[in-house]
Amino acid sequence: MKFSIAKTKMYAALQDVNHAISSTSPAALRGILIEASEDNELVLTASDNDVTIRRTLKGKDDEELQLNVEEPGSVVIDAHYIMDIVHKIDADTVKVEILDGALTSFKGNQAQFRINGTKADEYPDIDLSEPQQSFSVNELKLSALIEATAFAASDQETRPALTGIHMVLKEGKLIAVATDSYRLARKEEAIDSDLDIAVTVPAKSMNEVRSILLSEDKDIRIALDTRKAQFITDDTVFQTRLLEGAFPETDRLIPTSFISTLTISRSSLINVLDRSMFIKNENMTINHLHCTEDDIIFSNRSQEIGEFEQSLMEEGAVFKGEPLDISFNGGYVMAAARALKGNTIEIRFAGEMKPFILINPEDDSMLQLTLPVRSYD
Amino acid sequence: MKFSIAKTKMYAALQDVNHAISSTSPAALRGILIEASEDNELVLTASDNDVTIRRTLKGKDDEELQLNVEEPGSVVIDAHYIMDIVHKIDADTVKVEILDGALTSFKGNQAQFRINGTKADEYPDIDLSEPQQSFSVNELKLSALIEATAFAASDQETRPALTGIHMVLKEGKLIAVATDSYRLARKEEAIDSDLDIAVTVPAKSMNEVRSILLSEDKDIRIALDTRKAQFITDDTVFQTRLLEGAFPETDRLIPTSFISTLTISRSSLINVLDRSMFIKNENMTINHLHCTEDDIIFSNRSQEIGEFEQSLMEEGAVFKGEPLDISFNGGYVMAAARALKGNTIEIRFAGEMKPFILINPEDDSMLQLTLPVRSYD
Repeated sequence: MKFSIAKTKMYAALQDVNHAISSTSPAALRGILIEASEDNELVLTASDNDVTIRRTLKGKDDEELQLNVEEPGSVVIDAHYIMDIVHKIDADTVKVEILDGALTSFKGNQAQFRINGTKADEYPDIDLSEPQQSFSVNELKLSALIEATAFAASDQETRPALTGIHMVLKEGKLIAVATDSYRLARKEEAIDSDLDIAVTVPAKSMNEVRSILLSEDKDIRIALDTRKAQFITDDTVFQTRLLEGAFPETDRLIPTSFISTLTISRSSLINVLDRSMFIKNENMTINHLHCTEDDIIFSNRSQEIGEFEQSLMEEGAVFKGEPLDISFNGGYVMAAARALKGNTIEIRFAGEMKPFILINPEDDSMLQLTLPVRSYD
Repeated sequence: MKFSIAKTKMYAALQDVNHAISSTSPAALRGILIEASEDNELVLTASDNDVTIRRTLKGKDDEELQLNVEEPGSVVIDAHYIMDIVHKIDADTVKVEILDGALTSFKGNQAQFRINGTKADEYPDIDLSEPQQSFSVNELKLSALIEATAFAASDQETRPALTGIHMVLKEGKLIAVATDSYRLARKEEAIDSDLDIAVTVPAKSMNEVRSILLSEDKDIRIALDTRKAQFITDDTVFQTRLLEGAFPETDRLIPTSFISTLTISRSSLINVLDRSMFIKNENMTINHLHCTEDDIIFSNRSQEIGEFEQSLMEEGAVFKGEPLDISFNGGYVMAAARALKGNTIEIRFAGEMKPFILINPEDDSMLQLTLPVRSYD
């Protein structure tokens, strides 16, 4: 194997595929597989078994790549080392060459590294064959879907399905739902597909897809079966395993009739939550709302620390409907408020011990739901 | 106690005194002592026993403070809580009042906190009496002295004196020296004082002094005896205990005759060190220099990772004197190069197994010394 390539282009590609490698990856997967082919292409692959990312750099399509494959071949180099080398080499172009077995040279101007790699045939065999069903969705819309829901997934492995985003395709809609069983986030988008399928994708994988692939106002293709999903662009395949186990039936959890509504500016709500956040009970901030049409009092209290109270009427908040006293996890409402975007939030209450929903009145594609907690009173 | 004060001013003062509190502080010292006095002054004190910081906010001297003490008094409030409250209160002015015992109210506009404080008489008694000997030094010069030396102090408690900066006043000079016994940093400044005294101040304390007090081109007063030192400005007293135990006699460690000299641009040296840093042996980067007047080869090697090599002649480096092969801890030379400032570094060698020194040829007030290590060859 022998090739040269523009350093910044190679570094950017390495950074992206490196998202598949975690600090807990087994030794065999801490490397990046580098394959240089006769048709002047360089393929970089990284994987942690659950997620695999493959980036193809095509010399003939991209002049700025300055890719020149002199000898095809392949090798695996530790991800940390190769990223450090390519980032810091003393030239705009890096020359890579296998010297002997897996001993690989990286040359800049005066600087030369000779790094102990691993032979490519020792790299785990990863099945990147494309599943048969596929559909396309706008990258920015998919990004918004992930941003609106991923945070609400569980971080507990006790119920694995809850660590994912449940993606439902039906009737020309893509619906994303995540829940940790104490709160739920849901957002939908119209898509141009008549596929009818539901899968649960690890929220962690979706966040990675979002951070490396979803940045442009164009379509990305998603191919999937019951075991894996692939997010496919011109130069990248991002493959993730799917979560097994039934995702809970969430539609019936969402209340549809309400007794009262609080309308408040989103920044006011975020500020008052933030202001009170440090008053915790057993490491959780429990906020309380006392609402009548004449008075809206936000408070929280801890035996140890003290208490906080603020009237929200002065902030322009408006409460309509049956008077209500309700307590909730402030961290959950904060996350929901952050996700909703928009200037105004409507909180719709179905009863003091029933789940309540938060919506952006200007965007009915998204819904955030939170369960109340028993009050300290 | 009852007073009001501009929120941003109080927050800035709290941030500064909070430097005295560490996450390992005992419960009794996790608070900030707040004392409001009849002459419209607010005194904030925080301490971890080793370091005490006292900031005095004087209503009559600073209109922007908007300080108005209605009732003198004092209380202790947990540092995290009071900083969070003052930072996030919903008004430009915060009103503080003891309601009952140590229960303290913080009011903004609509927001009100009632926080469980501690009575001031339960706060440890800290002797802030001023030591008799004192001298003055320009803040920026003292800052440069600390920056040039503190990093070279030891972080091992086995020899406590080495965790400090040794400050020697004699013959109108202030000389700062720090060493962890593998490298040494030394910088001196002329001062207007005939004091003759030597103390060892914890490097950690000096870094704190630097970050909160030393920002202006004016004098700061330092009062000291054999047990403690105070750094005194118009509104602040920063007191630190001194380290006991003899500081090693370092002058005789510094070589005065040399066999050869390497002159190199500082950025080249930093870049080549940085480039090679990841090639470690037992978590240490050991670099090697092979120098003749015709050839300067920088390298390092690890059995496991591989090797690096770069000629420095192309970078404009010049070597004069007896040929030399020497190995050293790259992290130490990197820290020394960063501290030296300037465009050029001169490395003066006394022999292959002798300490070598790094200087900025345009600034003879500073010297960095590193011990070589046995080479892998």
